[in-house]
Amino acid sequence: MSYGKTFPLWRDAAGQNWPAYVDHAFVRGLKDGTLPRAAFLHYLTQDYVFLIHFSRAWALAVTKAETPEEMRLCAGTVNALINEEIALHVKTCGEAGISEADLFAAEERPENLAYTRYVLDAGHSGDFLDLLAALAPCVLGYGEIGATLIKDHAPAYAEWIGTYGGDEYQGVCHEVAALIDAAVVRRLGDNPTESPRWASLCKRFDMATKLEVGFWDMGLRP
Amino acid sequence: MSYGKTFPLWRDAAGQNWPAYVDHAFVRGLKDGTLPRAAFLHYLTQDYVFLIHFSRAWALAVTKAETPEEMRLCAGTVNALINEEIALHVKTCGEAGISEADLFAAEERPENLAYTRYVLDAGHSGDFLDLLAALAPCVLGYGEIGATLIKDHAPAYAEWIGTYGGDEYQGVCHEVAALIDAAVVRRLGDNPTESPRWASLCKRFDMATKLEVGFWDMGLRP
Amino acid sequence: MSYGKTFPLWRDAAGQNWPAYVDHAFVRGLKDGTLPRAAFLHYLTQDYVFLIHFSRAWALAVTKAETPEEMRLCAGTVNALINEEIALHVKTCGEAGISEADLFAAEERPENLAYTRYVLDAGHSGDFLDLLAALAPCVLGYGEIGATLIKDHAPAYAEWIGTYGGDEYQGVCHEVAALIDAAVVRRLGDNPTESPRWASLCKRFDMATKLEVGFWDMGLRP
Amino acid sequence: MSYGKTFPLWRDAAGQNWPAYVDHAFVRGLKDGTLPRAAFLHYLTQDYVFLIHFSRAWALAVTKAETPEEMRLCAGTVNALINEEIALHVKTCGEAGISEADLFAAEERPENLAYTRYVLDAGHSGDFLDLLAALAPCVLGYGEIGATLIKDHAPAYAEWIGTYGGDEYQGVCHEVAALIDAAVVRRLGDNPTESPRWASLCKRFDMATKLEVGFWDMGLRP
Repeated sequence: MSYGKTFPLWRDAAGQNWPAYVDHAFVRGLKDGTLPRAAFLHYLTQDYVFLIHFSRAWALAVTKAETPEEMRLCAGTVNALINEEIALHVKTCGEAGISEADLFAAEERPENLAYTRYVLDAGHSGDFLDLLAALAPCVLGYGEIGATLIKDHAPAYAEWIGTYGGDEYQGVCHEVAALIDAAVVRRLGDNPTESPRWASLCKRFDMATKLEVGFWDMGLRP
Repeated sequence: MSYGKTFPLWRDAAGQNWPAYVDHAFVRGLKDGTLPRAAFLHYLTQDYVFLIHFSRAWALAVTKAETPEEMRLCAGTVNALINEEIALHVKTCGEAGISEADLFAAEERPENLAYTRYVLDAGHSGDFLDLLAALAPCVLGYGEIGATLIKDHAPAYAEWIGTYGGDEYQGVCHEVAALIDAAVVRRLGDNPTESPRWASLCKRFDMATKLEVGFWDMGLRP
Repeated sequence: MSYGKTFPLWRDAAGQNWPAYVDHAFVRGLKDGTLPRAAFLHYLTQDYVFLIHFSRAWALAVTKAETPEEMRLCAGTVNALINEEIALHVKTCGEAGISEADLFAAEERPENLAYTRYVLDAGHSGDFLDLLAALAPCVLGYGEIGATLIKDHAPAYAEWIGTYGGDEYQGVCHEVAALIDAAVVRRLGDNPTESPRWASLCKRFDMATKLEVGFWDMGLRP
Repeated sequence: MSYGKTFPLWRDAAGQNWPAYVDHAFVRGLKDGTLPRAAFLHYLTQDYVFLIHFSRAWALAVTKAETPEEMRLCAGTVNALINEEIALHVKTCGEAGISEADLFAAEERPENLAYTRYVLDAGHSGDFLDLLAALAPCVLGYGEIGATLIKDHAPAYAEWIGTYGGDEYQGVCHEVAALIDAAVVRRLGDNPTESPRWASLCKRFDMATKLEVGFWDMGLRP
């Protein structure tokens, strides 16, 4: 997949960490349906907690945006995450017998906590771009995984694959990629790879990618 | 008006600063239609800049919420402010010949800046309650003004009065008041006025009220 | 005075706002000794409150630094402000009969509040450079005022002038200027004025300069 | 050890997680000298990175303090951490052939990152007390470990043990405990355990304690 101009560059800079994430054993288990149901429900529960803190990070982005357009897209994302995507999680988990109170009270695993708090700190310590570079691997990596798996997969996890591979989520990915591209040009100019900040943005993207790998690893250990 | 339980207590603690705000000469000029059009447009322009930063403060509240319900309401408010209320401002100003680019580029007056940055700092230095106490005077004071003026007013500013006195905005006020009440009980218990933090929350509400007075004063000096 | 390379550029970009600050009527009153004592004590009291929040802004800089050197200088500054400069203020005010409890309880004027909360928000919304650009006018402007006045002044405010015009404070100014220069090169490269961010850094410096003018204006109204 | 009144209550609320931290296999290896040197140097390197971010968290506390006393102690701690304790680390590592550039460039382990970013987020999402509850296990747990080991230990890690068991560090622990006790009374009153916030403060302390256990675990895997 290519979402915009910046993402492919950050992804390439992450080297082998990127395929370690998007082609992780957990992802292959979703594709061929061999992922144990217990692992999936464990993942869903942790992912609910993840989305709570990931939404906080997008809300932080609203506070760091510099243009009305940046604010609009980030605010829309916060609202979609909290009032739609999390609601979907609650529904799916509810069908599996896990209540929202259970979800909210779930013990947050260290691999989960490490990831979201790193993203939030990227925002607090840096600027809007630092935050976007840390948010990108989750948003766009799930888009890439969904777009790949939707072409060929077993039926077991078709609903999950349909969510991320479907048109709506793919549209979100293109919007977020456009937001990133415009934010990069606005702050780093037309040759962003020559900016002294480029390396540190790549490093943030790379660290978030490694933390995604840790999240899948954790998903396999219910 | 009485929005919930906490707001009337904070309002009373603000003493004469509260009527100085909700019964300000600017407000009386909106009511009887004597407010000069230039002052109104100047106010609208500054209020656009205000809403940008006020939305940032509600987004900060999302990052500081402790329950899914708190997050949902704050995220909905951010989205409503940015993707609806600000849009309405842009439309109204556009009809008066002021473009959104003009609005965004408007020189922010010190009285405006002081207010929103104080609210943001209330959130950064304190917790969710500190932030709500600083957000409350604007949200609920405009509700009170709208509810009062809608009963009897000249036609000149009927649209503005209708926005804040109308059912939709009044509904928002009741929701925000319920959010505040629940957040207070959750953190300070059933007798919040006996908490050592009560006085400092009253002080935050009072300071934000005084900054509202300063904002109206500024509105009268285009 | 020229402290480093970046400061003169930011100062020039501030145009007439810079002399409006460093050659303000309040400053001329300090120089020729005509500033009423009541105005000076009023200023000192507000400046105590200012320094509390200005120290918080330097502490925020510690959380946003990227190198051990940046952290060291910012941490040293926080400590010097809180455990030395503020202590000096307390001593001076104490001699004039104002206790530290009085100082801490002083009603913060809107012009004071606007300034420090703007600086803090520069840090929260942006990165380390945005924060430095907002911190610079106070630190380096006081250095420039002190260095100018120390050459020729009436005896009335010799102690204040000696503090800011003296070797120790001038040394701090050179250190802070070197910190700014290095931080700029690290993030914007060797031609920072060509960076898309340059204009917004100049704007932050300019706004903080205007807020300094407002602070002096307030100082003349005890 | 009993440092103040609040710490023993938080420690008890952490149940078995507290001894899992202060009597961890890593600690026993420091005591009897069986900890492999490679593990110790690996730990020191990660601890350098930890201290960088832990200092940022104490700097965040300066921005969230409410009294001059709270600010003074936090600012002093930031300065001591950055301009003394980290310097000591650099010296010890330097003697073992690890330069400060190596330390700063060290790959931060997820267990390390999780801990410090959790503490920072405790500060950003909550108030001064939330932050102190997350800072306490490291400061006071190291004090407890040092005070215990200094009574009886093998010579191999005597310097490390002497640092944390010595009078200076023990004095810091008593100061921090007094800061916590006063901050608790100021915000929660004289019966803090009856405050609705008590449970969430205990939870923050407990989570930071568990992250300390994870840090020692990581220390054993160079």
